[in-house]
Amino acid sequence: MAQTEPDSAAEAVLDALTFDEAGLIPAIAQQHDTGEVLMVAWMNRDAIIETLRTRQVVYWSRSRKALWRKGETSGQTQALKDFRIDCDGDTLLLLVNQEGVACHTGRRNCFYRAVRDGRIETIADVEIDPAKLYHA
Amino acid sequence: MAQTEPDSAAEAVLDALTFDEAGLIPAIAQQHDTGEVLMVAWMNRDAIIETLRTRQVVYWSRSRKALWRKGETSGQTQALKDFRIDCDGDTLLLLVNQEGVACHTGRRNCFYRAVRDGRIETIADVEIDPAKLYHA
Repeated sequence: MAQTEPDSAAEAVLDALTFDEAGLIPAIAQQHDTGEVLMVAWMNRDAIIETLRTRQVVYWSRSRKALWRKGETSGQTQALKDFRIDCDGDTLLLLVNQEGVACHTGRRNCFYRAVRDGRIETIADVEIDPAKLYHA
Repeated sequence: MAQTEPDSAAEAVLDALTFDEAGLIPAIAQQHDTGEVLMVAWMNRDAIIETLRTRQVVYWSRSRKALWRKGETSGQTQALKDFRIDCDGDTLLLLVNQEGVACHTGRRNCFYRAVRDGRIETIADVEIDPAKLYHA
């Protein structure tokens, strides 16, 4: 497969990053205005280039082994607001504007289980029926 | 090395998690009141048990191959406010109260580089001289 050509910004970003042995780097998606941590997923080189170019977040799906244009199927897109790199260059923080819900369970974010009073509680409701997110 | 005995809350948490082949799981630390994403590090089974028991965050240092009691050397501790698990059980979100700075560079958080105008800019100042954080 032909590699995507990075522009100069993407080139600088790629040079600053350390990818794991699978060529991936974890990325946190955070809602830009509320600070809500939405999800964590993985990006590869091409996902980063496309995300910076289109300003719509693209991950790498480890299960499907393919680029995962967030929201392409479900409509729950993430518009990129800021792209940040950590001190070690091995984790990304994406400030985004989440359309609808980030989690495949239909919840706004993926971190809906909390340890409370010595047990795990579900602290967020399903906002969109997952069957509606992934229908054909 | 003897394994740490989990209490029932820790037992439930460990049962809900999927660790990687090295026995680790990534954990995001987020300032509980401002929503600032501070850092990402790794936890193993014993780090989780001790964090839940002491309410002070303990990671696993992959470089030192030892438990890393955050702030033990630097004083920059993280008091646990809430312990959250994502939908897949393979990422943790720790809501904490960060004492001082989270980043080893002396900045409040590790995500101080941002892509702006086609290049990487440093968007946060050093608040504490790193030499002061790690002196003997």
